[in-house]
Amino acid sequence: MTNFFLGIDLGGTEVKLAIADAKGNIIEQSSMPNSFTSDPKKILPQLIKRANNMKYINKVSGTGVGVAGDVDQKKGVLRFSPNLPKWSGIPIGKILKNGLKHRVVIDNDANAAAWGAFWLDAGGKAQNLVCITLGTGVGGGIICNGKLYHGTTGSAGEIGHITIDPLGPKCNCGNHGCVERFIGAAYLSEAAVSAIKNGRKSILPGLVGGRLDRITPRILDIAAHKNDKLANEIWQFAGEKLGIIIADLVNIINPEKVVLAGGVSKADGLILKPVIETVKKRAFKMPARACHIVISKYTQKLGVVGAA
Amino acid sequence: MTNFFLGIDLGGTEVKLAIADAKGNIIEQSSMPNSFTSDPKKILPQLIKRANNMKYINKVSGTGVGVAGDVDQKKGVLRFSPNLPKWSGIPIGKILKNGLKHRVVIDNDANAAAWGAFWLDAGGKAQNLVCITLGTGVGGGIICNGKLYHGTTGSAGEIGHITIDPLGPKCNCGNHGCVERFIGAAYLSEAAVSAIKNGRKSILPGLVGGRLDRITPRILDIAAHKNDKLANEIWQFAGEKLGIIIADLVNIINPEKVVLAGGVSKADGLILKPVIETVKKRAFKMPARACHIVISKYTQKLGVVGAA
Repeated sequence: MTNFFLGIDLGGTEVKLAIADAKGNIIEQSSMPNSFTSDPKKILPQLIKRANNMKYINKVSGTGVGVAGDVDQKKGVLRFSPNLPKWSGIPIGKILKNGLKHRVVIDNDANAAAWGAFWLDAGGKAQNLVCITLGTGVGGGIICNGKLYHGTTGSAGEIGHITIDPLGPKCNCGNHGCVERFIGAAYLSEAAVSAIKNGRKSILPGLVGGRLDRITPRILDIAAHKNDKLANEIWQFAGEKLGIIIADLVNIINPEKVVLAGGVSKADGLILKPVIETVKKRAFKMPARACHIVISKYTQKLGVVGAA
Repeated sequence: MTNFFLGIDLGGTEVKLAIADAKGNIIEQSSMPNSFTSDPKKILPQLIKRANNMKYINKVSGTGVGVAGDVDQKKGVLRFSPNLPKWSGIPIGKILKNGLKHRVVIDNDANAAAWGAFWLDAGGKAQNLVCITLGTGVGGGIICNGKLYHGTTGSAGEIGHITIDPLGPKCNCGNHGCVERFIGAAYLSEAAVSAIKNGRKSILPGLVGGRLDRITPRILDIAAHKNDKLANEIWQFAGEKLGIIIADLVNIINPEKVVLAGGVSKADGLILKPVIETVKKRAFKMPARACHIVISKYTQKLGVVGAA
């Protein structure tokens, strides 16, 4: 029997399933919608059914689940998820195990992505690696000495909540001036909207037919590539803020590799250049030279592959 | 033969030697002066002689050296030390090994202190621990999964250079707004002197006979315990700044214990209270509750015991 693994990326808008081989190659994929208000009592049986209908499910010997939120890895329980409020306290691991009839482990989605980046972007070789997921929130996962690092209560890697402005605006987590509060997707869009409302010229309103609430990082990316000055400034701003915390992480963790993943990172060089410049300016020289900062080539599948 | 270890704390003003047993109990101690301009060619032979004259040296099976600076642990070389400029590139490990005739390992002093804190303050039990040394500089050492964490080039744990104010004053490391730039011993004294020169009333000038350049953290501590408002404000300020980065570390590393050590931390509750309050306010609840923040009970011997 070939040894395959099932990875489930349990997100707030979609659930992705992928069966992968031991090397991280995806053999089969599936997906189903999810929503902020979804009820785990309905979704989990559907998910089990969908998984059990996959062609290669009989060759799967274990399932990994990545979910945005605070996960108790040992108990397989999602303690709290801001994007799936009805799922708090749900023993996802146990329910899936009963339905799938094999071993199930669950973890934070950024940890799953870090594990995916370790295998896919670093070929299993970077012993110390930090993966930063840039999307609605800013998440992180840390590989220390070749192993996923969980910390004392499984909460390690909350990189998005490093303070970069102690007197700054309040973040959803309760702290002030977290990096997520500046470069989370919605805040980047907000910065653009605010500038436009204050009279800044930009092609952005044209790209969204005047519907400013439709400005997303994807739109900012398109505008920037068309040389829109405002959009380019916002990517510069995002890269500088992100660079500050990556410099911190270079000094604290001295990683071999920092991998940027998630929707916001698709803006390729636009965010990477100011990140690298800022790290070069701010971090210690020796660990900065030893650290390779890249955008993941596998953003779409890091979560499922890492989970698998 | 009893298995003893020699620990050497190689500082910029003093070299401390201690022979300890396997449990970290100090059996014999010695010390010799050192200085900013000291020449390793003179100091190292003196140090070897002093060590070899210790009563229990024959029972020592290995020596550990902790030194402030960037250390290549594998090669036993001090790459760079801001406090011992003539020692850069010196193969301390090899020279001491030749003189002492047993195994010698060298490491950053904050890493040595972290290892000491792991054994003395945490009884070898806190699997994930951060030790912060507060003195002229702000250093750090990290224990991950029960082991000293070095990172990719041995540079991990530079906690003093986490940015807390990106537009803040320039730090010696080249970055702007590092926490060390605010709470390094000299900057705390500077804050007091500046306030006094601007007309603030305080008992501090009286405590140093009007010689404001003699205001040290030790003097700030005495004044604060005599209810001097300015001195108390400075400890409050230091605790808040330190609390910001400890909240960051709680979110990133999720440690079981944070141990504060070094000269500045002697101000006991004065710095600890605002630290704990700030962490409670800023860090995620779950990892904050799981983290015990303490002042080391063994500050004087963390370095030598950790090195041993």
